[in-house]
Amino acid sequence: MPKKVDHEARRQEISEALWRLASTRGLDGASLRDVAAEAGISLGRLQHYFRSKDEMLLFALQHINRLAGERIRARIEALPEEPTPREVLRACLSGLLPLDEKSRVGVLVGAAYFARAVYDEPLRAEAKNGIPQLRALFADQLRRAAERGELPPERATEDEAMLLISMVDGLSTYVLLDVHGPRTALRLLDLHLAQLFGTEGAGGGDAGAPASYGAGAGAGAAPASGEGAAPPSRPGEGSAKPAGRA
Amino acid sequence: MPKKVDHEARRQEISEALWRLASTRGLDGASLRDVAAEAGISLGRLQHYFRSKDEMLLFALQHINRLAGERIRARIEALPEEPTPREVLRACLSGLLPLDEKSRVGVLVGAAYFARAVYDEPLRAEAKNGIPQLRALFADQLRRAAERGELPPERATEDEAMLLISMVDGLSTYVLLDVHGPRTALRLLDLHLAQLFGTEGAGGGDAGAPASYGAGAGAGAAPASGEGAAPPSRPGEGSAKPAGRA
Repeated sequence: MPKKVDHEARRQEISEALWRLASTRGLDGASLRDVAAEAGISLGRLQHYFRSKDEMLLFALQHINRLAGERIRARIEALPEEPTPREVLRACLSGLLPLDEKSRVGVLVGAAYFARAVYDEPLRAEAKNGIPQLRALFADQLRRAAERGELPPERATEDEAMLLISMVDGLSTYVLLDVHGPRTALRLLDLHLAQLFGTEGAGGGDAGAPASYGAGAGAGAAPASGEGAAPPSRPGEGSAKPAGRA
Repeated sequence: MPKKVDHEARRQEISEALWRLASTRGLDGASLRDVAAEAGISLGRLQHYFRSKDEMLLFALQHINRLAGERIRARIEALPEEPTPREVLRACLSGLLPLDEKSRVGVLVGAAYFARAVYDEPLRAEAKNGIPQLRALFADQLRRAAERGELPPERATEDEAMLLISMVDGLSTYVLLDVHGPRTALRLLDLHLAQLFGTEGAGGGDAGAPASYGAGAGAGAAPASGEGAAPPSRPGEGSAKPAGRA
């Protein structure tokens, strides 16, 4: 179905033009006409793909969520064979942080949608769409870790999973506001993971080592992949200032 | 200076008209004319108080931050005499969650500003303005708790304080998106505090009891004050759906 594929590709291109506007001046200010101009097409042509701004916003949000899902899958696939549950968790969680320019734009645009989603029902439904699955995935990894003796069993819960999601969301917020840089956000995530797994106080080390929880050694926090993951535990981070808009 | 006081009061009234618009349809859509209509004054009169939309937005954000500060101070003052550091922390943190209608509007409007602050420098400066002080305050409470033997000393850090702020920010986000209700957000906050203080697995109990960390009993999580604080640990929360806009 090349026709349909092409239609989808054009809709994605238009979405990306919308994101460029959203990441530099928010969503509400961007009219269909602005988006058409940014995408280099006529307003009439844009309306061939999206009949209304609402339809375009919803599609663009779905497209963002799809890309975030792909980014996380890629991070998991980049892990060594048979990764530990903790490595899988860290790959997912760090994939949600704005650590490089691509993920930063995703989070920026997500923030623009968020402000709208709190009073727009269809956008809200899509904005929270992936959360229950993500929570279930994380809880499942926590349970696997508990079975392997790498996590206190009482921590292998949906509640802990939701705390992880909330934590990463908040850490991302403060990267966007420039309260801390991406490296600090990653370092704080690792601190929380070390506490969750009962391995705080441990030095750097290799997250792959199947250390028992509470052993106080071994399961520090090695960056899961190269993609924007900076070395943890670096206090001053001058140059880590986010790279700005796409 | 009654003249000046009056001027300030009118500016606050206008801010509050702006918030009502922001919490129902975001900030970008609200023109000076819309805000004047919502405040029941003429556009000319509004411009007597604010010469531009930017000036109005900045003042309104400062006013929100001031009110949030007052709400937190009130929660601390409502605590029993000589509250424990943990009680102070919980009062502050729960004061940041959208647990009742007033705080919900504050968080909703804060979210609208956030989307703008990521690309608007003066708003960003104000949006992150209170964070370093908040982090220092929380770190200070953690250090006091460690001195009293109520917290493992290695957790009495600015990093832990920032994790607390991030956590509450994320929990609030998911209340606004209706992923969980205010009660669940509070319960999750208490879960995190119990872990931080090393008292997880403890039952309800009284946060006032100076239990040593790790003792596994006593320092559960009693609601710090009546203001919207629902009893923790209630799984189903059907009716806890946020009350909607102001």
